[in-house]
Order: sequence, then C-alpha cells, then structure tokens
Amino acid sequence: METKRLGRQTVQLGEGVSVVSFANIGGKLESQGPLADYFDELEQDSFFGAKTWEQGESAMQQRALQRALQKGGLSASDLDYVLAGDLLNQCIGTSFGLRSFEIPFYGLYGACSTMGESLALAAMLIDGGFARLAAAMTSSHYCTAERQYRMPVPYGNQRTPTQQWTATAAGCCILGKQGDGPYITHVTCGKIVDKGITDVNNMGAAMAPAAYDTLRALLRETHTKPSDYDLIVTGDLGALGHEIVVDFFAQDGIDMTKNYTDCGMLLYDLKGQDMHAGGSGCGCSAATLNGYLLQGMREQRWQRIVFAPTGALLSPTSSFQGESVPGICHAVVFSNTKGEA
Amino acid sequence: METKRLGRQTVQLGEGVSVVSFANIGGKLESQGPLADYFDELEQDSFFGAKTWEQGESAMQQRALQRALQKGGLSASDLDYVLAGDLLNQCIGTSFGLRSFEIPFYGLYGACSTMGESLALAAMLIDGGFARLAAAMTSSHYCTAERQYRMPVPYGNQRTPTQQWTATAAGCCILGKQGDGPYITHVTCGKIVDKGITDVNNMGAAMAPAAYDTLRALLRETHTKPSDYDLIVTGDLGALGHEIVVDFFAQDGIDMTKNYTDCGMLLYDLKGQDMHAGGSGCGCSAATLNGYLLQGMREQRWQRIVFAPTGALLSPTSSFQGESVPGICHAVVFSNTKGEA
Repeated sequence: METKRLGRQTVQLGEGVSVVSFANIGGKLESQGPLADYFDELEQDSFFGAKTWEQGESAMQQRALQRALQKGGLSASDLDYVLAGDLLNQCIGTSFGLRSFEIPFYGLYGACSTMGESLALAAMLIDGGFARLAAAMTSSHYCTAERQYRMPVPYGNQRTPTQQWTATAAGCCILGKQGDGPYITHVTCGKIVDKGITDVNNMGAAMAPAAYDTLRALLRETHTKPSDYDLIVTGDLGALGHEIVVDFFAQDGIDMTKNYTDCGMLLYDLKGQDMHAGGSGCGCSAATLNGYLLQGMREQRWQRIVFAPTGALLSPTSSFQGESVPGICHAVVFSNTKGEA
Repeated sequence: METKRLGRQTVQLGEGVSVVSFANIGGKLESQGPLADYFDELEQDSFFGAKTWEQGESAMQQRALQRALQKGGLSASDLDYVLAGDLLNQCIGTSFGLRSFEIPFYGLYGACSTMGESLALAAMLIDGGFARLAAAMTSSHYCTAERQYRMPVPYGNQRTPTQQWTATAAGCCILGKQGDGPYITHVTCGKIVDKGITDVNNMGAAMAPAAYDTLRALLRETHTKPSDYDLIVTGDLGALGHEIVVDFFAQDGIDMTKNYTDCGMLLYDLKGQDMHAGGSGCGCSAATLNGYLLQGMREQRWQRIVFAPTGALLSPTSSFQGESVPGICHAVVFSNTKGEA
C-alpha cells in the first residue's frame, strides 16, 4: 500500500472521508454567547435533567450523539465505531453516556484535544477501510470540571485574570466514506510538549507551545503556509494562549495575525460575559466545530480550515506533586474540496 | 478499497502487522509470582526510584518503552506513534512517562482493556498505511490504584474474597510492517456492556459480560470456534469472572474449559500469594502478554491466541452516585502465521 504519510506526524487522507452529520449542545452561558445561533440544543438546566452534574454531562453526550444521528438520518446501529472521551476521572461522561447505544467504542483521553484526536483516528479508520461510518465526540461541564480540578462551585472561588471558563457543551461529528463534505484531507498527530509551566490557572500558556509545535509540523509536512487556509482555529488556548502562539510564529517570520483564532475566544463574549481569558474544556472546541465552524464551511464562509484543539495533560495529583503541565495538540484539516485519491 | 470488515466489530488485517519487539516490567509481588522469569525488569522499590507512587508508575512506562525499543534495536525517533493510557485520573502515568520521548501520541482510556485497545488501534494504523512502527503500552500500580479507587494503602483495609489485586506492572508492544511475528491477524472492538453490577469489590463479575460479548462477536464474525485457538486469554477477570465467562458460553453449548484462561489467574499464585480472586489492573494483562504470552508464541508453545483484556469503566464518583459498573473488552488475535494479504 502506498504510504499516506507526508512526514512523521502528518497523514494525507484519500478522497473518502467526509463529514456526514454533526451536532452540538450547550448550557446557559453558551446560550448567552455570540455562537448561540449555531447550537442544535441549548439547555438552561445545568443538570440536563439528571440528578448530578456528572450524570448531566453524560446526558449531554447522549443528546449530542442522538441529534447527530437524527440530522444524518442514521440510527446507532449504522455506526461502526464511536471514538470519544472527556475530562472526568476515568472518562465517565463518555462511558455512561454511551452505554445504551451498543456501538463499538474506543475510549480516548486527550484532555481538551479530544475533539481533534477522535476526528483524526475516526478519519484514519474510515480511510483505511476499517469503518464506513464513525462518530467522534467529546464534552465538558463547568460544574463537573470545577469540583474535580479546582474548587466546589458553591465555594465561589476568586478567579485569576489568566483563567478560562470550562464550557458546558458537547459536540459530535459523524464521518463517513460517502458524504457531501466538508472533507478531512489531513491529520497531524501531536507530541507531548512541556515547557515547564506550573501555574494551573494559566492553561493557555501551558498549551500554547504544543499548538505551535503541531501547527508547525502540519505546515512543514504539507508544504503549506497559513495563508493557504481560510481559517486556523486552536481549541481552547483563550486570549493569552492565542497571543503566545502568534508570538512564537512571529519569531519564525510567519504572520498568524490574519486568519488565526481560537474557539475559546469565539464561544463567549469575553468582556461582556466576564470570561477572563476565554472558554476552555473539551466541549469548547467540540461545540464550536460542530456548529459554527462546520456550518460556516457548508455555507461557503470558509473553504479550508485547520482545526487544532489543545489538551493540558495534568491532573490535580500531578500538580500537588509539583509537576509542570504537559500539553498536546492534534490538528485536522477540513476542506470543501475532496482530498486526492 | 476492499473492505477488511468481517462484521460490525471485527476487522481482518493484511499480512503486514507484526510484533517487532515487546517488554515488560513488574514490582515486588510480580517478582514472587509464577511468571517472574518472563519479566524484562523486576523492581523491588515500589517507587521505582521516584518520589511518589504516581511518578513511579510513569517511570515504569518509561522503562518498559525504553526496554522494548532497546530489544528491537530501535530509538524513539523510529516510532510513528505511541498509543497508551492507564488507570490514573487524566492518565498521568502515561503522559508524564512519555513526555521526554517526543513521539506522536494518541492517549487512550479503556481502563484495564487498554492493552487490547492500544494494540487494535496501532495494528489498524499500520495496516492502513498510516504508520510503519507504533508502540502500544499501558501500566498499573497497586499503590496508586488503591488510593485513587479504594483506600490509602497504610489504612490496611480488609479485602473481600471477590476482590482482586492491582498489578504493579507495565507492558509495551511495538508493532510494525516488517517483523518475524507473531502477527496480529484480527481485531475485535468491544461495546460497552452493563449488566447492573454495583459491587465495586467484584470487578470480575462486572466485566465478564463484556468479555463474553466481545469473544462471541469475534467467534461469530471470524467463523471460528474456541478450539481453533491454542489459547484464549482474558485480561483481568480473575477466577470468578473467568468462571462466569465459562458459564455464559456453556449456556450457548460452547465448551471453554479446555483452552481458556485469564491473565489475572496467571500472574500470581492465587493461594500462595493470598491474592483472593486474582490479579487486575491494566498492567496485569500488559505484563502477561508482553512476556509470558508473546515469548511463548515465539517459542512455539502456542501458534494462535486470542488476547481479550477487559476494562471496568467506573470511577469512584460514579459509584458514589449509585451507578452500576459498565465493562468493555477489546480482542486481538495473534498468530505465528501471517494474515492474508
């Protein structure tokens, strides 16, 4: 078989990997943000009808998958795989959310890079002939993340200016061999990058070096430049992490100021909603992609975008033990034009 | 491209996916067990030279990967991907263990099924032409698992008879397009199966239905029967879970008593080492495969085996909230004969 590897990190896919359907769901703050019109469901109840926030996060994933199936005219039995994960310990948002669907399941942990990781693996499984239809999905929930990573929500902890707000949102993208696009043409797998940041209230700074590393690999191995894309979008670096990525590229003489943004800066009105550095969490990039971005591509607003969500691979335990915060970034190129055969 | 899908869950691989190298590492109790001779490294220090048990678990993964690379005459830069995960919250055993290697990384969470999941995905990435060499790896540590899932070790908690002992061990398997075998010929992806077991001290019973479900899918979709394999090995069901799987198949008129065993029954001397129902943890199946089982195949003790580790997809939070324990099982067929082209 002819190699599809353009370099160590980037794979070029054939013509057969298309977005078939996508859906997203958000909570109250997401319904008050600038992307509200791009959600399939907006729920004002932070429990999503369940008894606990964790069960609510599972319900979000259920509803996102159900809605993506419905929009694509599909049923759960049509899917060969679902690749998914979340931020909760042991990824219970995903495993409890998915258990009633009876779909073959590969569980992922990529922190907030999970939407990129799940799309990359699903796209390769389809391109390689191992699946006809596969779903990629993830979620995050402000209340489950706060009490797991930081403080119980009722404590009303003071937030630092560099801090971000974990989105209460989920997104699901169903990929298939047949479809009208957008198409996934390339995927770039990230390496773990750790520049020694130990401030757990500054995830943007911790993850920015990973975004720079993966985007640089993508541009190098595909022989492209930022202007070859209509939009380059990282996942949840927020305003500060975004600025760091722009600075890193500027040092290489590459201008990222024209068409580079971050889902954490898109999902909320940073000033109006008092979101400090911006949105974060797996659901931030998942909901932005599976709504605003993919819909925008279908409406021809953009022809070719790079979607590159980043994850911070820490746990409260690793931070308590004095460790720094490793980051990772997985990138996926979407195009309205089919890839090469 | 011709489909490689034999059914919804099982994929048949071409001739090109071979074990290139493998290595394992164990702790003190593993060094006292019946498989001691099949370890590459046995360490008496439960901290593995680090300051904390969690950092020790990362060190185990580092050493397992390093040893597998060394045994295969490879360096980290030869690997296109590493697919790995562990039981710790946010999989920090893996992310901190891998961060110095600079290998493109896809993080997985499959609980104790991770060795099967990582092998399955790595094998498909190689078969599909997306990678030349990829490592699959996981670990578990008795002390990190106890304090995360149950009680702090110094508390000296009483153990129920159905309980298992989390292995302090890691295993790494490097797969490639070129190699002298054993070869991976088939992979079967599991579904989440939840039969409502809520006893967190009886993981064997919680996971057995998932093992039965995946093994049944494998046999059905490959048109094989248990006697077509020299050995069928689940991951860490222990003695009780093993018995349940035998019973389930007996109800279907299928005899599993001849050649079916479980890594949790192999790794320790259950009575002599007072291990109650047997070994468990991601490291239990990973260390048994990447030592005793693969070495046994290379020595022609077995020609064809099914390796089917199971995972319990719970967290302490889900149990505190009254949830049952969903299970999953991913199966991989190893053969000394190459798969079909």
